[in-house]
Amino acid sequence: MKITDVKVFVTNPGRNFVTVKVITEDGTYGLGDATLNGREMAVHTYIEEHVKPCLIGRDAHCIEDIWQYLYMGVYWRRGPITMAAIAAIDMALWDIKGKVAGLPVYQLLGGKCRQGVRLYAHANGETIEDTLDKAAQCIEQGFDAIRLQAAIPGLKETYGVLGDKKDYFELQGNRPLPPEQEWSTKKYFKLVPELFAQAKARFGDDVEFLHDTHSRLTPIESAKLGKLLEPYDLLFLEDASIAENQENYKLIRHHTTTPLALGETYNTIWDCKDLIQNQWIDYIRTAATHAGGITGMKKIADFAAIYNIRTAPHGAPDLSPICFAAHMHLNISTHNFGIQEFVGFGNEISQTIFKHDMRLENGMIIVSDAPGLGIEFDEVQAEKYTYKRSYLPVSRLEDGTLWHW
Amino acid sequence: MKITDVKVFVTNPGRNFVTVKVITEDGTYGLGDATLNGREMAVHTYIEEHVKPCLIGRDAHCIEDIWQYLYMGVYWRRGPITMAAIAAIDMALWDIKGKVAGLPVYQLLGGKCRQGVRLYAHANGETIEDTLDKAAQCIEQGFDAIRLQAAIPGLKETYGVLGDKKDYFELQGNRPLPPEQEWSTKKYFKLVPELFAQAKARFGDDVEFLHDTHSRLTPIESAKLGKLLEPYDLLFLEDASIAENQENYKLIRHHTTTPLALGETYNTIWDCKDLIQNQWIDYIRTAATHAGGITGMKKIADFAAIYNIRTAPHGAPDLSPICFAAHMHLNISTHNFGIQEFVGFGNEISQTIFKHDMRLENGMIIVSDAPGLGIEFDEVQAEKYTYKRSYLPVSRLEDGTLWHW
Amino acid sequence: MKITDVKVFVTNPGRNFVTVKVITEDGTYGLGDATLNGREMAVHTYIEEHVKPCLIGRDAHCIEDIWQYLYMGVYWRRGPITMAAIAAIDMALWDIKGKVAGLPVYQLLGGKCRQGVRLYAHANGETIEDTLDKAAQCIEQGFDAIRLQAAIPGLKETYGVLGDKKDYFELQGNRPLPPEQEWSTKKYFKLVPELFAQAKARFGDDVEFLHDTHSRLTPIESAKLGKLLEPYDLLFLEDASIAENQENYKLIRHHTTTPLALGETYNTIWDCKDLIQNQWIDYIRTAATHAGGITGMKKIADFAAIYNIRTAPHGAPDLSPICFAAHMHLNISTHNFGIQEFVGFGNEISQTIFKHDMRLENGMIIVSDAPGLGIEFDEVQAEKYTYKRSYLPVSRLEDGTLWHW
Amino acid sequence: MKITDVKVFVTNPGRNFVTVKVITEDGTYGLGDATLNGREMAVHTYIEEHVKPCLIGRDAHCIEDIWQYLYMGVYWRRGPITMAAIAAIDMALWDIKGKVAGLPVYQLLGGKCRQGVRLYAHANGETIEDTLDKAAQCIEQGFDAIRLQAAIPGLKETYGVLGDKKDYFELQGNRPLPPEQEWSTKKYFKLVPELFAQAKARFGDDVEFLHDTHSRLTPIESAKLGKLLEPYDLLFLEDASIAENQENYKLIRHHTTTPLALGETYNTIWDCKDLIQNQWIDYIRTAATHAGGITGMKKIADFAAIYNIRTAPHGAPDLSPICFAAHMHLNISTHNFGIQEFVGFGNEISQTIFKHDMRLENGMIIVSDAPGLGIEFDEVQAEKYTYKRSYLPVSRLEDGTLWHW
Repeated sequence: MKITDVKVFVTNPGRNFVTVKVITEDGTYGLGDATLNGREMAVHTYIEEHVKPCLIGRDAHCIEDIWQYLYMGVYWRRGPITMAAIAAIDMALWDIKGKVAGLPVYQLLGGKCRQGVRLYAHANGETIEDTLDKAAQCIEQGFDAIRLQAAIPGLKETYGVLGDKKDYFELQGNRPLPPEQEWSTKKYFKLVPELFAQAKARFGDDVEFLHDTHSRLTPIESAKLGKLLEPYDLLFLEDASIAENQENYKLIRHHTTTPLALGETYNTIWDCKDLIQNQWIDYIRTAATHAGGITGMKKIADFAAIYNIRTAPHGAPDLSPICFAAHMHLNISTHNFGIQEFVGFGNEISQTIFKHDMRLENGMIIVSDAPGLGIEFDEVQAEKYTYKRSYLPVSRLEDGTLWHW
Repeated sequence: MKITDVKVFVTNPGRNFVTVKVITEDGTYGLGDATLNGREMAVHTYIEEHVKPCLIGRDAHCIEDIWQYLYMGVYWRRGPITMAAIAAIDMALWDIKGKVAGLPVYQLLGGKCRQGVRLYAHANGETIEDTLDKAAQCIEQGFDAIRLQAAIPGLKETYGVLGDKKDYFELQGNRPLPPEQEWSTKKYFKLVPELFAQAKARFGDDVEFLHDTHSRLTPIESAKLGKLLEPYDLLFLEDASIAENQENYKLIRHHTTTPLALGETYNTIWDCKDLIQNQWIDYIRTAATHAGGITGMKKIADFAAIYNIRTAPHGAPDLSPICFAAHMHLNISTHNFGIQEFVGFGNEISQTIFKHDMRLENGMIIVSDAPGLGIEFDEVQAEKYTYKRSYLPVSRLEDGTLWHW
Repeated sequence: MKITDVKVFVTNPGRNFVTVKVITEDGTYGLGDATLNGREMAVHTYIEEHVKPCLIGRDAHCIEDIWQYLYMGVYWRRGPITMAAIAAIDMALWDIKGKVAGLPVYQLLGGKCRQGVRLYAHANGETIEDTLDKAAQCIEQGFDAIRLQAAIPGLKETYGVLGDKKDYFELQGNRPLPPEQEWSTKKYFKLVPELFAQAKARFGDDVEFLHDTHSRLTPIESAKLGKLLEPYDLLFLEDASIAENQENYKLIRHHTTTPLALGETYNTIWDCKDLIQNQWIDYIRTAATHAGGITGMKKIADFAAIYNIRTAPHGAPDLSPICFAAHMHLNISTHNFGIQEFVGFGNEISQTIFKHDMRLENGMIIVSDAPGLGIEFDEVQAEKYTYKRSYLPVSRLEDGTLWHW
Repeated sequence: MKITDVKVFVTNPGRNFVTVKVITEDGTYGLGDATLNGREMAVHTYIEEHVKPCLIGRDAHCIEDIWQYLYMGVYWRRGPITMAAIAAIDMALWDIKGKVAGLPVYQLLGGKCRQGVRLYAHANGETIEDTLDKAAQCIEQGFDAIRLQAAIPGLKETYGVLGDKKDYFELQGNRPLPPEQEWSTKKYFKLVPELFAQAKARFGDDVEFLHDTHSRLTPIESAKLGKLLEPYDLLFLEDASIAENQENYKLIRHHTTTPLALGETYNTIWDCKDLIQNQWIDYIRTAATHAGGITGMKKIADFAAIYNIRTAPHGAPDLSPICFAAHMHLNISTHNFGIQEFVGFGNEISQTIFKHDMRLENGMIIVSDAPGLGIEFDEVQAEKYTYKRSYLPVSRLEDGTLWHW
């Protein structure tokens, strides 16, 4: 079943998405997501110029061999661009495999381990009260796990807080240059314990809360934050400190029992092997698009299972619905799945491009039973919304020192 | 001293080279190498589309801040493409700084630590005898350190051996698709100890030999090879096993005192921190183009010095002469420099594009004293030789299993 | 660019300062600080008798080689006297290099990473109230980070508290023999948590406080102090315990998330390698004068960066303004700089000897843009104020046991 | 018993020796050695200017308190100059204590553990044969442990080999500037295994041999050397690699059972704590003059005993006979003493200045039974031979890189 073509699309229904379509000799095709926020065109070129020529003529059934061919067979391994390219091809091949089998991908991965995929929602606001009001809305919608973020008083802008923007598409899809935001650990510490104290007071024990530090603390500061948040029973504290030096988490882990989550920027098992092997974290948050596709994710999940670590895939809107669909197949079939981040199915335009029948029910996703990944990509519609350069912000301390993004 | 433009060129005088030119408001410009063998256009797009817009208007003097801006300030860190882009910008900024100061870059890095830069040459042949004849030619030319590789009997093709090709440009610049080569550890083991036994017998103790395994052995096989080669006093054994799992080298190190070298594919300190910190290797072989430029290399070298590890920068022809010049400034000024790989200054056409006054004398390079990096790039000439897609080969075991490239 | 002379001056504008001047054949000269509190003349002899003869005729550009020549080339390495001598020569050579390049030294070190250099001030008083009144004055002057020390009730004298002295010059420049002070851990513990509780109550969260224990606690006592101070969010706790046995800090670290700082008496990376590599501290406080100059400091800073440790250079008045200038160039260009200790630019006489254009603005230093270090030394003025032997005090427990100074 | 005066003498009977005399109120005095090869005058100033004023009036009986006063009571601890000063004072105080008690110092240290002090002699020559001839002479003189060193063929000069010089005094006492010597590990490796093979062949098993590498190898090279020398049963291999990073010896230790010795440049327990605690060495070679005197040495020896490590004090002629006498008292009374390096009692002039009744018998020293250290210092004679600046050589690799001294 030979691959006859590979197409790459960059479409922008409010944000840029890179979509890969692998086509075989009998016309069966598969879809993959290769979106790399702020670096989309480098992945586009990588696939178009460097990967595609090598794939034409290969057997689409040889998913593992093609994965190794693109990873191990290449002098330059690892890194976000390489791995996003591999990921997209890999997803597309699993999509094809499912279609050929007439089965949803999760059935090929071992079948269902649970009825649906538990989600956590985002509540973020300009003030603590505003944030908690939004959390209340999430609870009404059926969510029982909510990530709380609030604007930090004294800083002009806080990363990830919507401000006057309607949604994340409007917030993050429209930055022709990286804005430079301020960061102050001191001001952050004044806010966060209070945010969770009020959340606990208002909502009690029935809801679980989460929080994302966006890697802006040093390890000892993360350790302190973890301790301060212990009374509020977080489901997890995410991206407390940067972990290029994985031993950072040894220090954090030592001081607190607050569960720790990490990994949305990781691209391979090598980025998190020590973290997992030493049980320094509790949730591994790699995404299919950024960690080598379904094949890459399955291997990371299996490794994590040995060390009692659950998966909690990244679910921000910088992943296209194709990646989200791939996550659903992984989540429903992976025994050590934990929880899935969820910020909605995308804006209205996006939903005209990426079509699927996944359903949100009571804070859970009901997975599609269509063959393959169960997602369609409308190329004609996609071409109406062309790529527009946009960046994530950059972060600086108040004295001008460049800080973790 | 504002940056006003960034230009990216891909030229192919037999092989592809990616060159970056950073231009400032007063016309001073700097040059950097961003060549990524087989992935050139992805780097081109990365810089042109994603990096350049953010640099215009920044102060060219702020080298460290720009390095951190492009590395730490970005959500997607690490990986070969990102780091090659950062590297090229960084080299160009050091080139500018040197020109502004009226000093060769090595003076800004602390000045000369030695008279010249010791090199090792390549000798590779179809047979052991052929290889040793070529080694004899190297000795005549003044080299006293030579890497020996020979075609492995029983395999159709051996990576890195010239065969009927004139030079590495002809060998490696002309592969529109990756050829698939065979690998057999058993056949390799029959050749290599014999190669070095004969070399020692023929040349005695006055020349030092090196060998590159191209990561094709498992750690325990590398350990065995290291022990077998101990009588021949190698200067180092290179890329014995793959080191994504850095602990691989703990095992190798345990069994042999043959000095070990590694690192030409590494992109950041995080790829080799454990290797260095545990003294599992003796030479770190990162290249300026692939490990974050002069700034990145200096930090790795200083880190390595604490652990008795010397630098031995990669010097294959997949680096442009701009990188080679950057290496010379690093090598002459880095106290714990060891040895530089050298395969000539490039073919004739290449030398009409990249002009410099570095001199080869008695197996050593005499570094340029011109301000900056001391290298010029002829844009007109470069444009005559346009990019041509070319790949490195892929490696498979005799049963078809994909193997380390 | 040959070195033709090396001069050493010991001047005492209230305290002793050792200044080194390295002069080259074309008249360009550089300045370095070699002040070693209470051991000044030993350094003077070391340089004059043992170092100077070896430097005459060497190339002033070869900073790294000269550093290694004086460190690695010598049978007797390490220790405060050797390293102060090396430091002063090294600073002077960077001063020369900057002048030759026509650039301030920070530009040679990679350029600015921030607008200015954040400082912390000292507030010390006879009582808690007195200390906090002085802190209030610091806040009025624009500081937002203040070290608090108060006299310990029940002890005759407390180290570092001014008592009836006008400033540190008067306090510490006038001790012909080391006074013997008392120490009582029990009395200290009664004071310190209360000091910070009152500070927090009076000043709230807008100011950050620091504290220096002057190494007088055992590790487990430091661990206890760290825990007791956690509610007051110290920027750091300094010199909690002595760290000749670096593992002392493993124990302290285990018990508290109060950030830890250390290092003003360290002379080489070897004094703090384990502390840094294991992330047992958060700030490394080595000084250019005492840890091998700009070259030594840069290497320590780069090493520390890998382990999330920031620099917080020592800034007591036992360093001359030349060292302070060197720190400013390091601080502005070192990415992982944290904060600089600051006790003023010296007394009036001192300011007639050491002249510079660094400015204090809003709790920050604005660095000089003059070529080199940007500091001048008035030799004629210096000769008016000759060396006067003076000691730091010695510390004893109440039963007479000699204790950490 | 108050100290009333401290005198410091620098005399040069062929080499410089720094002698300290501590005088008490009743006229009893003690002698100490403060010689620091190539840095003599810095120690002289340190004692004269910074230590002496603090000692006048103290009780000479309080040896431990004075040791702590000069070490722990001082802001600047450690380092060769500080510790040589402390050492000399400490030796002198033990000398006084012995005289007051009417007992040789070894009796105060616990009495004799053995009849005499076993020695190893030096044999060094221009060729292997020459070296072995000199070893034969040593054997005739009664030595059964001999250190073998030979000139390295191909290098102009080899450190520590006499060449045309009569003795070490003539060799090392006469260098107004540090000569720069070449080093080549490759050439060294051609010589050393052959040297020991021939020694074993000529002298059999009755004599034990030793070798000193003078820290010129990297750890992996030392490991290799250790393995190569295993057949020759060395008593120990000395200073294989530099050990500022004590973990260097972990690597060496892993690969070889050749016993390892180290420590002549160490000044405190902190320089060797990890080496000892991990049993990475077998002999600790600290000297009384350089590691804090009799008090410092006793503590190191007791610590080493816990880990099966024996003492083998440095005994080169850069220590004065006063230090040698102190070693004899330590050696005879320390249970875990191993062997003492011995190069004779000094030249004729030296023996007119330093007088004692230690006797060499059958490769052993018979210790003096005179009260105190049993050594006299002729001040009148000493003053005839004044200080003359002289340096140890500096070492460079063949490409000019500065190397371990």
